[in-house]
Amino acid sequence: MITGKNYIGNQLSSNGDITYRTFNPKLNIENEHIFYEASSKEIEKSVQMATQAFEVYQKVSGQKKAAFLNTIAEEILALDTQLIEAYTSETGLPEGRAIGERGRTVGQLKTFANLVEEGSWVEATIDTADPSRTPMPKPDIRKMSIPLGPVVVFGASNFPLAYSTAGGDTAAALAAGCPVIVKSHPMHAGTGELIASAIITAAKKTGMPDGVFSNLNSSGIEVGTKLVQHSSVKAVGFTGSIRAGRALLDLAGQRLEPIPVFAEMGSINPVVILPKAAQTKGENLAKTYAQSITLGAGQFCTNPGLILGIKDEALDNFVQTLSNEITAIEPSCMLHPNIIGNYEKNKANALQQNGLTKTVEYANNVAINHARQAVTAVEGKTFLSNSILHQEVFGPFSIVVQCKDADELTLIISNLEGQLTGTILAEDDELTAHKNIVDALQNRVGRIIFNGVPTGVEVCAAMVHGGPYPASTDSRFTAVGIDSIKRWVRPFSYQNWPNNLLPDELKNENLLTISRQINGKQTQNSI
Amino acid sequence: MITGKNYIGNQLSSNGDITYRTFNPKLNIENEHIFYEASSKEIEKSVQMATQAFEVYQKVSGQKKAAFLNTIAEEILALDTQLIEAYTSETGLPEGRAIGERGRTVGQLKTFANLVEEGSWVEATIDTADPSRTPMPKPDIRKMSIPLGPVVVFGASNFPLAYSTAGGDTAAALAAGCPVIVKSHPMHAGTGELIASAIITAAKKTGMPDGVFSNLNSSGIEVGTKLVQHSSVKAVGFTGSIRAGRALLDLAGQRLEPIPVFAEMGSINPVVILPKAAQTKGENLAKTYAQSITLGAGQFCTNPGLILGIKDEALDNFVQTLSNEITAIEPSCMLHPNIIGNYEKNKANALQQNGLTKTVEYANNVAINHARQAVTAVEGKTFLSNSILHQEVFGPFSIVVQCKDADELTLIISNLEGQLTGTILAEDDELTAHKNIVDALQNRVGRIIFNGVPTGVEVCAAMVHGGPYPASTDSRFTAVGIDSIKRWVRPFSYQNWPNNLLPDELKNENLLTISRQINGKQTQNSI
Repeated sequence: MITGKNYIGNQLSSNGDITYRTFNPKLNIENEHIFYEASSKEIEKSVQMATQAFEVYQKVSGQKKAAFLNTIAEEILALDTQLIEAYTSETGLPEGRAIGERGRTVGQLKTFANLVEEGSWVEATIDTADPSRTPMPKPDIRKMSIPLGPVVVFGASNFPLAYSTAGGDTAAALAAGCPVIVKSHPMHAGTGELIASAIITAAKKTGMPDGVFSNLNSSGIEVGTKLVQHSSVKAVGFTGSIRAGRALLDLAGQRLEPIPVFAEMGSINPVVILPKAAQTKGENLAKTYAQSITLGAGQFCTNPGLILGIKDEALDNFVQTLSNEITAIEPSCMLHPNIIGNYEKNKANALQQNGLTKTVEYANNVAINHARQAVTAVEGKTFLSNSILHQEVFGPFSIVVQCKDADELTLIISNLEGQLTGTILAEDDELTAHKNIVDALQNRVGRIIFNGVPTGVEVCAAMVHGGPYPASTDSRFTAVGIDSIKRWVRPFSYQNWPNNLLPDELKNENLLTISRQINGKQTQNSI
Repeated sequence: MITGKNYIGNQLSSNGDITYRTFNPKLNIENEHIFYEASSKEIEKSVQMATQAFEVYQKVSGQKKAAFLNTIAEEILALDTQLIEAYTSETGLPEGRAIGERGRTVGQLKTFANLVEEGSWVEATIDTADPSRTPMPKPDIRKMSIPLGPVVVFGASNFPLAYSTAGGDTAAALAAGCPVIVKSHPMHAGTGELIASAIITAAKKTGMPDGVFSNLNSSGIEVGTKLVQHSSVKAVGFTGSIRAGRALLDLAGQRLEPIPVFAEMGSINPVVILPKAAQTKGENLAKTYAQSITLGAGQFCTNPGLILGIKDEALDNFVQTLSNEITAIEPSCMLHPNIIGNYEKNKANALQQNGLTKTVEYANNVAINHARQAVTAVEGKTFLSNSILHQEVFGPFSIVVQCKDADELTLIISNLEGQLTGTILAEDDELTAHKNIVDALQNRVGRIIFNGVPTGVEVCAAMVHGGPYPASTDSRFTAVGIDSIKRWVRPFSYQNWPNNLLPDELKNENLLTISRQINGKQTQNSI
């Protein structure tokens, strides 16, 4: 049930004066529930409780954490139609998407449950002593990953489930042993509260310490600011705009004790279409890309906002087919009037730039809050000289850059900001011929794709969802996949520590039968 | 031969107007060579060359990088007495220390050579495709670590070899595939130039691209500032004071594209002596600690600057023995008049604080620039309320805090800033009885030691040399040991990439016979 209240640990609480409602963009009306923004007292209490909970939770066994995460997944499924209804009413997204995203969210929770239940993720490393070494005896040193402390997670507007309350950041942080305080996204506060209730129910059922999770409502920047500035908060997870992500990074950097901010931010996800590919399969690629550009009203971090090719007849045909295909697609509802407002503003701003031509924009009547998708084109040198065109237009919008040759295309890529993904559409033999383009693209992105679309981020061990700034604030980590747990831990060494007092992961006897590195060899053996 | 010039890639260069000399603290005179600070042009050129070199160097094979690193080690040894003489004349440290530190430096280079020659360090992870999966086919995704780009390394005053020109940061960055620009430490510019010449010789002998290494002289903050602000620099390594490390972190954070700064900074390395241990072996511990406090004139990051105990007769006896032992030790020369000047100033400032009593200070005449070691004592509540006493006094100085009980001791630890190390001196059964103390200490440090001294940082896989801020700027990484290579790389994914164009590490055929994770299993098999 949606109450509009905050979860301060296990308790529902609504002491604040600021209230707000969520919005149904399809019906263009406010939803019924009133949400109470967290007060300063509630913020403080949630952090205090998380800090206390950390003392216990950091030592909870992998098996128990797995039970907690699996129970969250079950409780989310148990929310059933209540959740799907809240989701669709707060986002304008269709039921199928809600169900798909719920599946992904539940899958992520289970993946992390398996990871911590198995236990090898802590990267236990043991170098045994050599008392006879000269001139100095060699000590016994044993290392493993331990959690950082309370983590603040910001809900993302575009993924109310998979990147929000119990999304990837939360699942990874809880798996790591960090209590989580979610700053709920105001656009889907009801969905967020339902998910929070599932987490709290699971925490109670599996005996987790009160304070291991809190969910704070907020309609402005105050709640998030106070959380990031709080000295007991040790790390931050965020998915959203460059402006907001950078503001959080700066806030965290100005603290007496700076803390890591893992912000996954904007990206225009450049796609290179090489000449032969444009010629041999341009038409099919155009059809595929019309779908990718408009998927979910273009509201994906990996939406292809930039298509680069070398100007010739085949590229012209590609643009023509793309334009035809894209106008044949029914426009979708965007998440919120503010989001479609920004989309229309940013699209208009791009179209005002000299040299950018609109090749197509959906022209028929559209329902309220539905986005008119558009494709535009520009010459390479014009694009290169106007950085406004390098900025993301969040929504179903893409620019095709018609370069005069491969060198200009390479130069453009080299001058792009960091990106989550880069895609090459090519015939096999073209990659070697255009090695410079591939090399330049690799230096700007976190993931490179061959003959595919950037939308669709597989949750797997080999995934990198991140990239050079401003794709993310720290390219050394991924936001998706099991390695995303590494954001919330630090390595810790014990020197000559008594065996019986070491954590099980590091004892001589391999009680958890995890894989460990002992004196340079990876093994499941005991010592 | 020392020329006083910069290495801009392979070329010696001295275009700048600012000159300076190094200082022999033992003789209390300037050394003969004149050093030319790098000019703006030279800085720019070194970064440009590093950027160009990166295009080639990032793809150099592990085998070739290993040859480069091993040749650097050989060339350093070939400098022979020339190096040892420069080292001792620029630091006042004895020849034995110079030889020991050279051994460690050469050892680090060889360790990283072995690591990249073997090759598994890139953490190759492969999730193969499943075209039959519904609703969406599963793509083939393959991940490995790739280098970040040009890295700037700041030489450290207290380790002219092991943490400077070819020290741990440089060795790890070169191993990772990053070109390195060293901002030489002004106190040992001659030692730095000799080591740089060894690196350049090795780079030429092994065919590395010009620009893979540069060495810039500097006497102030300008050279370092310009390097950290340069848009083509992608990461920074630093060992030194909190003030300087924080300044670099802030500079890097204010860039349009923020970059990671790995600064290993100050630490007072708390040591807890529990009551039984004080009683049963206090005298031996006092002897050991007198040595640890004065080792290398107290100029180690892991110097024990704070000893915490519970006030009783045994602790009084420990302090008495420590005081007696420490005055029996011959004072050592510090690195530079500025360093001993700061030591005397900070020691005097600490001694002016209310409630701090000097239990002993070396009283006999000392040679010029030699440090008078001192031990002081203070009550727990006084220490707790005066944060000046929590600050590092860099040199042979330690405070013994006499707590009224275990709770006060725990509270003090909880209020300490982050530390590189924490040590517990105890009888085995005391650890369980004082679980709160151990837990509190673990939350504040990167490495915890049982019945030993914090000085001495083993270079091994299980080592963590780092810790919560301000011990380091990012506790998620270590500055010593093979995992320190992780600071200079980011994960990178290939999606559906043609097998023949993948790097060898990720091809179906395991050409390098490295250990890889394939569909969740660690294996050396091909696909």
